Amino acid sequence: MEQAFHWFCRKCGFREDFGRSYYWKCPKCGSPLVISTGRRYEVSKGRGLARYKSVLPVTPLKYMGEGETPLVKVSEEGVEVWFKLEYLNPSGSFKDRGTSLSLSYARKLGYTTVVDDSSGNTAISISLYSRALGLKPVLFIPRTAPEGKKKILRFLGAELHESESRGAASVDVVEYSRSHPEAYYVAHTWSYFYVIGAATIAFEVFEEAGVPDYVIAPVGSGGLLLGLAHGFKTLLEQGLTTKMPRIIGVQGYSVQPVNVALKGVETPGEESWLADGIMVPNPPRLAEIVDAIRESQGDVHLVGNTEVREAWLKLVDQGFLVEPTSAAAYAALERLKTRLQGKSVLVPLTGSGLKIIPLM
Amino acid sequence: MEQAFHWFCRKCGFREDFGRSYYWKCPKCGSPLVISTGRRYEVSKGRGLARYKSVLPVTPLKYMGEGETPLVKVSEEGVEVWFKLEYLNPSGSFKDRGTSLSLSYARKLGYTTVVDDSSGNTAISISLYSRALGLKPVLFIPRTAPEGKKKILRFLGAELHESESRGAASVDVVEYSRSHPEAYYVAHTWSYFYVIGAATIAFEVFEEAGVPDYVIAPVGSGGLLLGLAHGFKTLLEQGLTTKMPRIIGVQGYSVQPVNVALKGVETPGEESWLADGIMVPNPPRLAEIVDAIRESQGDVHLVGNTEVREAWLKLVDQGFLVEPTSAAAYAALERLKTRLQGKSVLVPLTGSGLKIIPLM
Repeated sequence: MEQAFHWFCRKCGFREDFGRSYYWKCPKCGSPLVISTGRRYEVSKGRGLARYKSVLPVTPLKYMGEGETPLVKVSEEGVEVWFKLEYLNPSGSFKDRGTSLSLSYARKLGYTTVVDDSSGNTAISISLYSRALGLKPVLFIPRTAPEGKKKILRFLGAELHESESRGAASVDVVEYSRSHPEAYYVAHTWSYFYVIGAATIAFEVFEEAGVPDYVIAPVGSGGLLLGLAHGFKTLLEQGLTTKMPRIIGVQGYSVQPVNVALKGVETPGEESWLADGIMVPNPPRLAEIVDAIRESQGDVHLVGNTEVREAWLKLVDQGFLVEPTSAAAYAALERLKTRLQGKSVLVPLTGSGLKIIPLM
Repeated sequence: MEQAFHWFCRKCGFREDFGRSYYWKCPKCGSPLVISTGRRYEVSKGRGLARYKSVLPVTPLKYMGEGETPLVKVSEEGVEVWFKLEYLNPSGSFKDRGTSLSLSYARKLGYTTVVDDSSGNTAISISLYSRALGLKPVLFIPRTAPEGKKKILRFLGAELHESESRGAASVDVVEYSRSHPEAYYVAHTWSYFYVIGAATIAFEVFEEAGVPDYVIAPVGSGGLLLGLAHGFKTLLEQGLTTKMPRIIGVQGYSVQPVNVALKGVETPGEESWLADGIMVPNPPRLAEIVDAIRESQGDVHLVGNTEVREAWLKLVDQGFLVEPTSAAAYAALERLKTRLQGKSVLVPLTGSGLKIIPLM
């Protein structure tokens, strides 16, 4: 852990050297914190995220196979699509990148337990990495979470607390972490570790194929979109490229806070519960997401169940065994194909279909 | 397709240039065929199996993310274990390597349908790759196959035929392929494409880490073990290394044809249905498996449910979310640790746990 890194609050200016304390939000004003670096980007030897350790605030304590996912380039009706197969990470989603960083930090600071509120891919990722790093995973999940996911979590040895709702879970988890000083609250929707984790996707793409013209990414809490923006911006600012991709965020009609924030008004459309992984009504980093999209001259697009379902089956038809949420970005691409003629477009495929298809 | 490759029968000497016809077994004597090559091993640019196209009889028609799986090195009680995370292939198992080759060949020869008898990882792999290559998948499965796997197969659009038993399925599939000339019978337990597919695991390990002292691999039909042997032997014969690993095959006590063939007598022990993926009573390539083990001065080890279960949980504890069959080799390693002090040991982790854990 290097003092070249520091915690920083965009809102109130709070700033502190990184590596001694843990904050899941600003201790002064309660805003999401950023971890910033003055370090030079370079590619190190090794496997996985450690290849980018020069710009990572913490190096993973253990390599478990995360990162270096396949990049599959396909030409589709005049658009050069770069699929990044993030669902082939160890627990079946891109979350493993952020989890690996966040939990390595928890271990370094001496925590023995990690706690979070999630019932989806992040919960599975945290449970798997906790075991491997010798930490006890505690999870607050909504009572209504799918039984199949509960089974995976129990199998992974997570201590499950069922809250009345998703909202209640995020209140209960904070209470738990207040009364358990040994517990590290991951707070994945707030944590910058998940943003930096996702930035390594951009680094891998750059190393292998350069900078794409566009990035189309699903947006729930926004860690993926912000990470891709952070990654490509790092390369741009350090003079390794002169190109920044335009970033298109994708949400469902049912839950569209980024769209509302960008356009000032809700856009009506078909319900979109099929892409459940991006149904986050109040993303803590909403302002940053909007800034990242604007700064890149990007946009936000909304999709509904019908398009998501079609895009999902079309992905599986190409050999990509993903979950429906992964298809939201691809559904948006379908609509944009005329506008994106001749362009290269990075589409991260986020989560594995194997977690849910056996239960369908 | 190169004429440097040819079909070859070890038993009757049948030999024919490769690339014009398809045989799942010797047309003269009914033995399993080998595809041999006179080509020089070299690493090509590109991703996935295409990196080794100089020694592949057929290059995958499409890259879908197979191969280049993570290699995780762990020091365990004095043994240097090299885990190869084959469960992170696109359909969740190492079978994708062989499927990619076999089905690319089917497409090149103009078949429109592929048919096979399997209800496990191979069936899922074939269904996924068929869709992506524009082939229709037809599968004969035992009526008793787990509902979760049937759901995955149906989701992937496979035409399922339920036979009375595993044995009946392998009779029914041959009848089907006789009356359907448009159908390519994959015959994965016979097919040398699956052996060559697995050989690419050895090539990747060699490129990244060199040749290990030992390989410990689960043996069902033996494609994995034979492929690893074939791969390392290719490197040895072409003078790229002077070292050949000792190859340890692992079977369960319940179904142990390789052990019986090597030692002349059945070894009693605990039942082993937990490692269901390796319960193949009559592997067509039994003689070759025995030869490969003997030639490498290797051995066979048997494991039972208790050990497999313990090894499985220990793998998950290390962050490897695999299925129980994957743990058979690791269970054998546990026993051999004293003998393997200071040695490097390659242990391929074959199949994803995500296909079954949500159903447990």
